[in-house]
Formats: sequence, C-alpha cells, structure tokens
Amino acid sequence: MRFQNVIGVRRDGLRHTESELRELAAGAANGDIPDYQLAAWLMAAYLNPLDDEETAWLTQAIAESGERVDLTGLPKPWFDKHSTGGVGDKTSIILLPILAACGMTVLKMSGHGLGTTGGTLDKLESIPGFRVDLDIEELKSQAKRIGVAITGQSPNLAPADKALYALRDVTGTVASIPLLVSSILSKKIAGGAETILLDVKSGSGGFMRTAEGALDLAAGLARTAKTCGLDCHLALTDMTQPLGSVGNAVEIEESLAILRNQAENAGQERVRELIHELAGIALASVHLVQTPQEGREMARSVIESGKALAKAEEWFAAQGGSIDAALPTAPVQRTIKASQTTYIAEIDAESVGVAVIAMGGGRRRKDDLIDSRVGVKVHVAVGSAVKQGEPLFTICAADEAMADRTERLVLGATSWSDAPVEKRPVVIRVF
Amino acid sequence: MRFQNVIGVRRDGLRHTESELRELAAGAANGDIPDYQLAAWLMAAYLNPLDDEETAWLTQAIAESGERVDLTGLPKPWFDKHSTGGVGDKTSIILLPILAACGMTVLKMSGHGLGTTGGTLDKLESIPGFRVDLDIEELKSQAKRIGVAITGQSPNLAPADKALYALRDVTGTVASIPLLVSSILSKKIAGGAETILLDVKSGSGGFMRTAEGALDLAAGLARTAKTCGLDCHLALTDMTQPLGSVGNAVEIEESLAILRNQAENAGQERVRELIHELAGIALASVHLVQTPQEGREMARSVIESGKALAKAEEWFAAQGGSIDAALPTAPVQRTIKASQTTYIAEIDAESVGVAVIAMGGGRRRKDDLIDSRVGVKVHVAVGSAVKQGEPLFTICAADEAMADRTERLVLGATSWSDAPVEKRPVVIRVF
Repeated sequence: MRFQNVIGVRRDGLRHTESELRELAAGAANGDIPDYQLAAWLMAAYLNPLDDEETAWLTQAIAESGERVDLTGLPKPWFDKHSTGGVGDKTSIILLPILAACGMTVLKMSGHGLGTTGGTLDKLESIPGFRVDLDIEELKSQAKRIGVAITGQSPNLAPADKALYALRDVTGTVASIPLLVSSILSKKIAGGAETILLDVKSGSGGFMRTAEGALDLAAGLARTAKTCGLDCHLALTDMTQPLGSVGNAVEIEESLAILRNQAENAGQERVRELIHELAGIALASVHLVQTPQEGREMARSVIESGKALAKAEEWFAAQGGSIDAALPTAPVQRTIKASQTTYIAEIDAESVGVAVIAMGGGRRRKDDLIDSRVGVKVHVAVGSAVKQGEPLFTICAADEAMADRTERLVLGATSWSDAPVEKRPVVIRVF
Repeated sequence: MRFQNVIGVRRDGLRHTESELRELAAGAANGDIPDYQLAAWLMAAYLNPLDDEETAWLTQAIAESGERVDLTGLPKPWFDKHSTGGVGDKTSIILLPILAACGMTVLKMSGHGLGTTGGTLDKLESIPGFRVDLDIEELKSQAKRIGVAITGQSPNLAPADKALYALRDVTGTVASIPLLVSSILSKKIAGGAETILLDVKSGSGGFMRTAEGALDLAAGLARTAKTCGLDCHLALTDMTQPLGSVGNAVEIEESLAILRNQAENAGQERVRELIHELAGIALASVHLVQTPQEGREMARSVIESGKALAKAEEWFAAQGGSIDAALPTAPVQRTIKASQTTYIAEIDAESVGVAVIAMGGGRRRKDDLIDSRVGVKVHVAVGSAVKQGEPLFTICAADEAMADRTERLVLGATSWSDAPVEKRPVVIRVF
C-alpha cells in the first residue's frame, strides 16, 4: 500500500525523495510493487516529468537494482558506447574492432532489435557460428585477451529497467526523456562504464523522430551522465535516411566492406563518415590521442593498414565466427536502377525500415523470427546525383513477390528532384 | 496491443470516441485489457480528465458492461437513492421505509463500508437474522410485495466498475470527478433506475473533503445524469461533523429512534432534518406530491402515525430481522459529560470515524472483520449550547482501555467556544 504515496507524489507533480526512487527500482526489480502500480507511476511520470536530480537518483537506483559488472583487471578508462538505434545502424560492429586495433579495450552488452530499430546481436547472429551469449566472465576475459567482446544484455544487470521497460512499451510511456535517460544510463553504469560515447539518432528512423526531441534527449543524457559521475561524450546524428544498407547479413557484409576500406557508394560513404567521427571522439575521450581530428586519422590508418580487419577476424573467431564465413544470401537479388537522371531528395528511413521488417528482416513482436538473408542495400544518399541506369537499391528478398512489394515500398520512400539537393551531414552536433 | 492507442489518446489529452470507451469498459469487465494498461489509462484520465461527453459515454459503457436489472412489473417511476457516504450516514435505513410508507417502491443495492465511510449493509447486518444477500428476483418480488427491499451489489452488474474501482483504489486515482461520476451513475443505470436522488456529502467525513470538491462532484453528477437521460435530484449535505451516532448497532438503534419519532438530542435532530429534506425531494421527484415542502409534511405524517415504523418492521421481517430484535451491545457504555458550560464549535467527522474504526467498528482493509457492538453516540452538534454535566458522547466499547483511547480521540476531535456558535445547516444546497 505504501507505494501509493509514491504514486501520489508523481501524480501531484511534487518531488520524489531519493529513497522513494530506490523503493521504486527495488520493487520493480523484485516484483514487490505490482505492475499496475508501476504502470500508474509511469504514466504520472510521463505527464509530470522527473526533474534532473530525480532523474539522476532514478538512474542510480536502477543501476543498483541488480548485479554490477566489476571491470577490475581491464585497462582504464572503462569505455562503453551506446546508440539510441536506427535503420541500418551497424556502427558498433565496425567501430569496436577499429577501437580495439587502436589499443582500446571495448566490451559491450547489446540487444536484439524491435520495430524499425535493428539489433546489433541479430546482425552478428547472421554470421554462421557467432555466439552472442558470453557470460560476464567470458566477456571480460575475451576483452582482456583481444581488446574486444560483445554479448547480450545480462538479465541480472539493472533488472528494474527490464521490468519498467516492458511496462512502458505497453502503456504508451516510452517517449519520456527522463525515463529514457535513466533506462540508457543505468545499464551503462551497471555495466561498469566510466567513459561513455552516446550516439543519439535524430529522424524518422530513430527513436526520436524530431530534431527537437533528439536534441532534448541528448541534452538530458549529457546532464544526467554528468550528475552520475560519468565521463559522457555525445554525438547527435542523422537518422532521417537509412545509415547505408538495411538488413542483417547485408549489414555484416557492409560492415566488412568498410573495414576492408571498400566503401564504394554514397550510402557506404555515410557509414564511413560516421565511423570516423565516432572513432575520433572515442579515441580522444580516453586520451589515446589529443583531439578528435587525430583520432579520425588514427582510425583511418588502422583501416588502411588492415589492422582493423585483422582485429575483426580475431574478434569474430573468438566468438565462433569468421570474417570469411559465407553469409546467408537471399535467392532474389534485384537491383533497382534510376529511370532518369535525377537528384535524391529523400529516402525516408522509417519507411525503408518498415519494408525490411515486412520481408521478415526485423521484428514486429519480441518473439518474431528473423530472416537474416533479406534486406535492402542502399547505394545512394540524400543529395546523390544519379544518372539514368545507375543503381539505387538492391533488394534481397526470399521470392519475386516479396521483391515486388519491397520495390514499391522503397521507391515510395524515395523522392527525387530535378535540381541539386544538398547532402546532409551525418553528424549533426557533438556534445 | 490496440489498447495502447486508447491510452495514448488520454495521455495526450485528446478526445476519446464512444467506441474506445466501450472497448475500455468491455475489456475491464472481461479481463481482456491487462491491469497495467488500465492503470496507465486511469492515471492519464486523472491528469487529463474526461470531458462531459466522454464521461457520459464511459458511464453508459460501464453500465452496459454486465447484466442490467429489468424493473418491468414494478410501479414507475423507478427510483433509486445514493449517498457518497459519510460518518454516521444511516440515511437509507430510515428513508427507505418512510418512502415505502408514502406509497413509493424503493429497492436498493448497497455496499459494505471501507475506511471512515460506514456501509449500510454492515449496519443492517448488526440486526440478528437480517439477510443482505437477496438475489435480483428476490429483491424485485419483495419490493413489489411490500414496497421496500435492499441487497448487496450484484457482481454481475457493471463489472467494469468493479475492476476499475479496485485499480483506482491502489493507484491513487480515486479522486477524479469524471471517474467518480461514471462509477456512481453506471451502477444506478445498470440497476434500472430512471429517477435518482443523490446525497453528496461535503466535509472531512465524506469522500469530498472540501466544499469546492463536493460541489464539483455534485455538478458533474448532475450534468452526466442529464446526458444519460436520468431524472436526477441532488442534495449537497454537511459532512464536516458526524451525522448523529457512529457505529453499526448504534446507528440501527438511532434509525429506529427516528422512525419512532423519538429524536431527542441535537445529533439526532440533524439526522431527522436530513431525512425530512431528502424525503421531500424524493416524494416530489416521483410526483407523489407537488413540492418538496408537501413531501416533508407527508414524511412527518407517516412517522407520526407509526406507518413508517410499521413499514420498517414489515421490511426487516421480510429480510429475516425484526425492529424489536435485541441488538448487539458493547459491554462498556461510557457517557462523556460536559465539564463546563460551553458551545460546541467543531466535531471533526473524520476523526470520529477513525476513532470508531480503531475500535473495530469499521474496516481499514476489505477483509477486516467488524465489531458491530462498538460505536460513539453523538448527543450534540456544532452550535449546541451545553451545560456542565450534560451528555456529549456515549462511547460503546469492548473494554475500558478501548473506551479510554476513544474518549481521548473523540474529545480531541471536538472544539469548544465560550461564545455562541452558529449551527450548520445539514442540507447545503439542492440541485
């Protein structure tokens, strides 16, 4: 019954005490507070948002609601990277071996995808034999040995977040910035991070569909991270158009192309640009270089020298895969070409994401199976000047009917211009 | 999943369609909508209140969420009376036989008490043998035969209200006027009423503690009742002080005293005044008389002639009791007398209610057992001029220690004045 008082505080727009938020997180984690009371609190918190101090308290309380990873024995500073997720967002798969090749130790817990936001684990699972179920000890020892390791989110870490997130998902209370901030940062804190790099996506393919919303989220993350004592670096990046190709195997293929220094079209060029930018920030954040500019140079150099690719092979092999493994391939590979000379004015990220989900390349529901073969290779970007007959998209589909449907959806997501269109910078702002 | 959209409408302060509210009520009744989604909707509805049309839609939808009582065969207009509940509120027990003695047919579903609000059923159950579990057919046939019958709320009537109320109780969302209005009126509609008399209590012992809140609730009830096609009559009445004595057996005793025309102190005088007022409104509402004034005269006359008492005996006997049955009596009966000549400035209703609950005369939780013997007889009212040695309260307790505690609480709830204090009218306003 006592939790009713806590609900009342939020409902009436008053301020929580730190101990009330500890009670909330502990009760969500151990099931002592029933779902309906948590749901009522979440709606009250959506409509009467937590202030900065309350958000920091909640973040810490969620981080402390379960086990915490102890990174003792790994080189400091303990670094983690997180993206708010987007269509074609394969950043971690490319960035992790680059950073490891530069001498950083990167270990990461990641998730499966839901909705238009693909999951890093789903993509890695399209590599035959790749294991994403390392336990914390395996994760740490692999990271210590080769500098890079990835696994699924441990259920024992920040269990309050798991309970709250499941409820937010079904009660229309996901899109609250203080709740998002506490969800994201609590997991980073529980994972042992001290220095974090956050990639906040802005646009229809990301969680925050408007530039204002994404900026608010980024600012909220920066403030709360600081209050919680994290060394937080933040990039606000474009998600109005897909970040290169979209799918599972096709994104692994594209990731390896970038690591092989083979980016060859405008879609891949944007991926490479983002990777360089994020690597620059990451390397500077841990003081391996003096400036992000030096970091970008270092990243470029480990790609060009083949060190990043070699690190990727070491990583994939350590988790049971190989960079040379044959990836699952869709039987239908249809390249859509430009019917006339034109400029690309728009490729709506969300619509492309939805088209890939419709082919089975993503999940509508948590228990949907994924067809890792399907996807859409995106050869162009907003601002690309294309000549008649040049490739725009390659649709990888299970059959011709599916390819037909996807072609209509992808062309529907695209708009054209007779006049030149400005390219959009992939990184909008760095905090 | 679809109900998330309905939650989103409320969360964003938009307007529901009628079919959304039907879906809500049906899903609450049959369990298709999980508690946590209903809880989130309730909090959103608390913070973004339903407008009048939405409230009327919700009321009808809840009324139609289960069985409905068909009063065919009983004389029209089909009348029902409801009180929002208060400390010492025994109105129905006195009013029903009076109205029946005047020629009306009154059948009522009532509830058990929770918190400081006593329950009519609990009070009637203190009469040895009295049955409050008539089924709908028994209720109707008894009302047809003798004009008066009462029973517990049928679980099949307005089941959506039962589900929503249970959640509101534990999520801090009870005190929302549109939700209160739909809860109260849906049950009246499901019960077959066409003409209703609502007694809205105002003050610390009632549900609405402030005069403004009670007035808002009364106004909301009046508007929604009208939209739903009910002929609704409404009295806003004083609940800043107890309505006479408080307890279970002691309230039956006091009810019979009023019916025997034996009201002999200022506390009972207020009960009698309220009964006359409500009877006047009720009799005029069904056109048995032209004006409430004539209705009051008629009520007075059936009391004075003994017809009302005879009807009460017929009623009690029909349900297994008797007006002459020996009521349970507390072993300790301690009368507190005025220590000096003074005026009564305040008797806080809630504090007296809490004191009676502490003796076991009411429920803190739904499954608490009730001691029907205990209570506090209130001999005075705000504005009473008392002389030294005159009785103020009689405490009916299980033992001396309990009487000591209750004496302190009841005296603590009372304040005094050397100067005359104005009496408070029992009826504040009639709509």
